[in-house]
Amino acid sequence: MRGFQDRLEVYRFQQLVRERVGIHQSDPAWVEQVELAACAGYVLAEPIRSTVDVPAFVRSAMDGYALRSEETFGASAYNPLKFEVIGEVTPGRTFPGVVAPGQAVRIMTGAPLPAGADAVLMAEVAREADGVMEALDAVPPRKNTGRVGEDIRAGEVVLPAGRRLRPQDVGVLASIGVASIPVRRKPRVTLLVTGNELLKPGQMPRGAMIVDSNSLMLAALVARDGGVIAEILHLPDDRERIREALLHAPGDLLVTTGGTSVGVEDHAPVLIGELGELLVHGVAMRPSAPTGFGRVNDRPVFLLPGNPVSCLAAYDFFVGLAVRRLGGRPEAWPYRQERFPLRDRISSQIGRVDYARVRIESGHAVLLATSGASILSTTTQADGFVVVDQDSEGFAAGDTVPVWLYDEQP
Amino acid sequence: MRGFQDRLEVYRFQQLVRERVGIHQSDPAWVEQVELAACAGYVLAEPIRSTVDVPAFVRSAMDGYALRSEETFGASAYNPLKFEVIGEVTPGRTFPGVVAPGQAVRIMTGAPLPAGADAVLMAEVAREADGVMEALDAVPPRKNTGRVGEDIRAGEVVLPAGRRLRPQDVGVLASIGVASIPVRRKPRVTLLVTGNELLKPGQMPRGAMIVDSNSLMLAALVARDGGVIAEILHLPDDRERIREALLHAPGDLLVTTGGTSVGVEDHAPVLIGELGELLVHGVAMRPSAPTGFGRVNDRPVFLLPGNPVSCLAAYDFFVGLAVRRLGGRPEAWPYRQERFPLRDRISSQIGRVDYARVRIESGHAVLLATSGASILSTTTQADGFVVVDQDSEGFAAGDTVPVWLYDEQP
Repeated sequence: MRGFQDRLEVYRFQQLVRERVGIHQSDPAWVEQVELAACAGYVLAEPIRSTVDVPAFVRSAMDGYALRSEETFGASAYNPLKFEVIGEVTPGRTFPGVVAPGQAVRIMTGAPLPAGADAVLMAEVAREADGVMEALDAVPPRKNTGRVGEDIRAGEVVLPAGRRLRPQDVGVLASIGVASIPVRRKPRVTLLVTGNELLKPGQMPRGAMIVDSNSLMLAALVARDGGVIAEILHLPDDRERIREALLHAPGDLLVTTGGTSVGVEDHAPVLIGELGELLVHGVAMRPSAPTGFGRVNDRPVFLLPGNPVSCLAAYDFFVGLAVRRLGGRPEAWPYRQERFPLRDRISSQIGRVDYARVRIESGHAVLLATSGASILSTTTQADGFVVVDQDSEGFAAGDTVPVWLYDEQP
Repeated sequence: MRGFQDRLEVYRFQQLVRERVGIHQSDPAWVEQVELAACAGYVLAEPIRSTVDVPAFVRSAMDGYALRSEETFGASAYNPLKFEVIGEVTPGRTFPGVVAPGQAVRIMTGAPLPAGADAVLMAEVAREADGVMEALDAVPPRKNTGRVGEDIRAGEVVLPAGRRLRPQDVGVLASIGVASIPVRRKPRVTLLVTGNELLKPGQMPRGAMIVDSNSLMLAALVARDGGVIAEILHLPDDRERIREALLHAPGDLLVTTGGTSVGVEDHAPVLIGELGELLVHGVAMRPSAPTGFGRVNDRPVFLLPGNPVSCLAAYDFFVGLAVRRLGGRPEAWPYRQERFPLRDRISSQIGRVDYARVRIESGHAVLLATSGASILSTTTQADGFVVVDQDSEGFAAGDTVPVWLYDEQP
């Protein structure tokens, strides 16, 4: 049993993740085709060009009368000009005839302008009776019409590669006749949950056995960051079983929890060194010091502490970064940040990053007064957390500090 | 064909939605049971109480030696005290014997403290050889141990009703042995998409026919706000078909798009007045003026304009509010707000709310210079929108204004 001798700085660890985890934007192994109805939230793998003009026809922007604009010149409430109404055109239909001088066609917003007509007179400045419409105003050519390609032109890039698709993006894609699109495949994460003491979620704790609380928390975090869980494997502290999983479990990324400390049962770090490369073991952070990172068969492996708070913080600092990078998402935390004055002081050490859970009470950030990394309930009682940077010894009571709020939405 | 005479103020409309759409927190028709693995993001329908202590046993907080603390008094590096190591206990196991005076048990973090012992001596201040451990320091009673119920006590409320479940909440629920939980059922929304000119998404536009871009956009917005789509019905502008759907379509909430204007083909508002109550038809807002709201068979019905930008804005101002209320989510928009100086002026009218799309360029908000409510591409080119309140005539160039950013995440 030995301590962690060399704790890597948090920012160096994050830089290492950036260097070692990433893909090329256009790597075909990371592109998949999804149906339009399911694509919101995905990241576009390629730019999307329209093959059509939207609209593809001159459309009416108003309810009114399609006619030849030069025929309305001079019309006013005092000098109404008469037109023969030769029919009506509604959206989705094409008027079969041609509008000749002295004629008009009743038209609805969105309907295609009939041949012969070049403008629409608004219904508000017309009156109709017995098949005759009186124009009470003049309209210039093209008035109240939308031109071909007014919204989108054929050949135009409507959405760039890398775009995380918003609801309105899906609408635009529908309007240009797209049925499915190439998106960045979601990174697949396998969780290796080790520990003889662990029961699977859904069971009642009994005797010396406790329920694994990390796997479902991590699964929800991975989903939040745009990944999917390939598999959750619960393994005993058995060297051979863990070795098998490190080599052969599915997924783009492996995450182990538990068994990362330096006790006699901690096989994973040793195995990673033997089977591949153990790049990090120990980080200058509180909690989460016993976090690790390496590669086996060219696949990234993160070692997260079994203590739930450490596991959460280590996920947010390192694993989430990798998942978001693989999925083409922005690197930044998906938490809102707000500034609050501290009620209490937070003390840290130069060289170490602290992750301090706080509650917001009467406009102040209140430190949750529990030290244990195993106290998961502090993260559910907390509204968010404060990060004390490695070049800081902490904050004084009354300091206004940025708080990362756990709730994703306002 | 007539104009909208009485346009309701936006804030009165929103107040009406609050008065008319809502449920009781504990209404059993709105509670369902979900598996723990699927519950992240759901809203808790009832408070969750723990039936167990976590941990349920005194656990070791360190790797080291379990012993009787009073036996270590006087121990130091200069005065090592000897203990017989009678065994080892690892997490998940219970030591079968009792620790007597002069004895110690090797113990790992998380393992239950053996009977007889009352503290743990850290491995760092001990050395062991040939079954004998030398203590190099003294420990007080309970040192390096976690007490029963330290994290969660039996009977304690661990999460309150109304809580939107975070990843760490799922972890806490697992740790207290919960397998499924009562959550607020997601509101089911049916979309009635009317318009003879509309093709279903996935088809190519042709002739006078355009592709419905609203239904998939609305489906994504509803999902974002915690609802689910019960059904998407594409209907022709046919009075009888629309009547049937208003009366018999599934869902907690109906949303029609298209056919809300005052043209000859606009059946929905008239039908709602006949079958139920048309509460709003026309709102003092640009775009989205032809938005409506009513009830048929005691079920809320929203009438959204067919123009895509109007449809988006009307959803965000009125429908999203209803969906979030029904789902137990906060009312506020799920958009981040940031302040930017305006490059151009935005002019509006007293009494009207404006929804102006802007792009962020070099730290400035730049108004997208297109007026058409049908120009959906402005919402994909935009980074967000500025709301001009009804008591404002707009903003001058250079004014710093709040911008709602479309991207949900930083």
